Amino acid sequence: MNAVVLLSGGLDSATVLAVARRDGFACHCLTIAYGQRHSVELAAAERVAKQLGAASHKTIPIDLAVFGHSALTDPHMEVPKAEAAGNRPEVAEARLETRTSNPNPQSPIPITYVPARNTIFLAYALAFAEVLDAARIYIGVNAVDYSGYPDCRPRFIEAFQAMADLATRAGVEGRGPRIVAPLMRMRKAEIIRLGMSLGVDYSLTHSCYDPRDGGAGAGGRACGRCESCRIRAAAFAELGMRDPAEGSGS
Amino acid sequence: MNAVVLLSGGLDSATVLAVARRDGFACHCLTIAYGQRHSVELAAAERVAKQLGAASHKTIPIDLAVFGHSALTDPHMEVPKAEAAGNRPEVAEARLETRTSNPNPQSPIPITYVPARNTIFLAYALAFAEVLDAARIYIGVNAVDYSGYPDCRPRFIEAFQAMADLATRAGVEGRGPRIVAPLMRMRKAEIIRLGMSLGVDYSLTHSCYDPRDGGAGAGGRACGRCESCRIRAAAFAELGMRDPAEGSGS
Repeated sequence: MNAVVLLSGGLDSATVLAVARRDGFACHCLTIAYGQRHSVELAAAERVAKQLGAASHKTIPIDLAVFGHSALTDPHMEVPKAEAAGNRPEVAEARLETRTSNPNPQSPIPITYVPARNTIFLAYALAFAEVLDAARIYIGVNAVDYSGYPDCRPRFIEAFQAMADLATRAGVEGRGPRIVAPLMRMRKAEIIRLGMSLGVDYSLTHSCYDPRDGGAGAGGRACGRCESCRIRAAAFAELGMRDPAEGSGS
Repeated sequence: MNAVVLLSGGLDSATVLAVARRDGFACHCLTIAYGQRHSVELAAAERVAKQLGAASHKTIPIDLAVFGHSALTDPHMEVPKAEAAGNRPEVAEARLETRTSNPNPQSPIPITYVPARNTIFLAYALAFAEVLDAARIYIGVNAVDYSGYPDCRPRFIEAFQAMADLATRAGVEGRGPRIVAPLMRMRKAEIIRLGMSLGVDYSLTHSCYDPRDGGAGAGGRACGRCESCRIRAAAFAELGMRDPAEGSGS
């Protein structure tokens, strides 16, 4: 039985791929190259797909940068950083700071939000699932993202499912894919614990929004200061571990 | 006030652009170049946007062909054709024949269906709408398509709306775009009558699925035999008119 797995090359989606493999699916991974600054993720996705035995891996370039308005795709916007990077950064503080950097201070949504990103990603996954006759689409949205991004919330995933069931030939015929977000209600440290139990090699993954020497295929070093780096570091620290990717150039 | 208009270069979306202009919006047109055989549509979209006074026009290349499985993007599948092309083709017969050509005879969905196409198109439009702070997204799905394609039905549009309201920062803040499908319940002849009353120059539009000398920018001639050509010809005939695009190389 086939499944489509949205794979970014980060910690979360690597874990999701391992979960989908555990669930018994032949996993067809889809990586969306959306003009992100952290395109070093794309090389990480390739390594992760191989390590975890994906049945196939496609990278699809899409141009979200043409729309601008996100720090992740717009070179004129700066990725929010903490002043100092500690070993145990305070996640709550990091989020607060991100919010303060937001051009709209009323909005609880960080400026690293990319317009309609998960809607676009899931739309592609839906097309791919129909062609593969896949039973599931796996996506690595989780409770940490949930607190900031509207398209990482359970309600969003449920609404996408309802729409997907009406959108495709497979859906109309009652065999459309189920959208599965196994990390939705998990904390980052729990995600890491789950992934390790399933054999994920986190040294292959990449989470930084702003790697110092980025670019596709480059071994960009994590900055250690962006929100993504700090959440990740805090989770490994909580488990009493060192991040295996830290200082390894990925 | 801004609106995003999904513009293919065909008869329906040209009419929708005219409706959006009549409704008083600054219209930002989005054309998705999805690896379709009838890429001559893309040049038509550019002409139509200009004629109808669009505020801007972006063409975004996306690769649906990588997924295959539609006669519109897969060079190994043939676009269904009638044996003979008359001046007043029977639309009902054309549809029946398309269904017979379908690899899955139980399915009422023609093989020219592209997996999740409108889901992907609307997802891009949603991203663009958020960046523009647009109040509406206009899409030219209509009652003729509705009879065959799952993602042209009113229920699909309603479900997409519900999802979109949860997907974006604008939606969460209660100012997300309304998705408007003004042609939904109109027959092709009614659409043409409406468009002519709003000044649409249909000689600029292109509807054929399989133009004889296609390719981006080329003046591909309509085949006159595919389903799209026959529905269009029948509608002009019903109005006692000659299709202004006929024989004009577009």
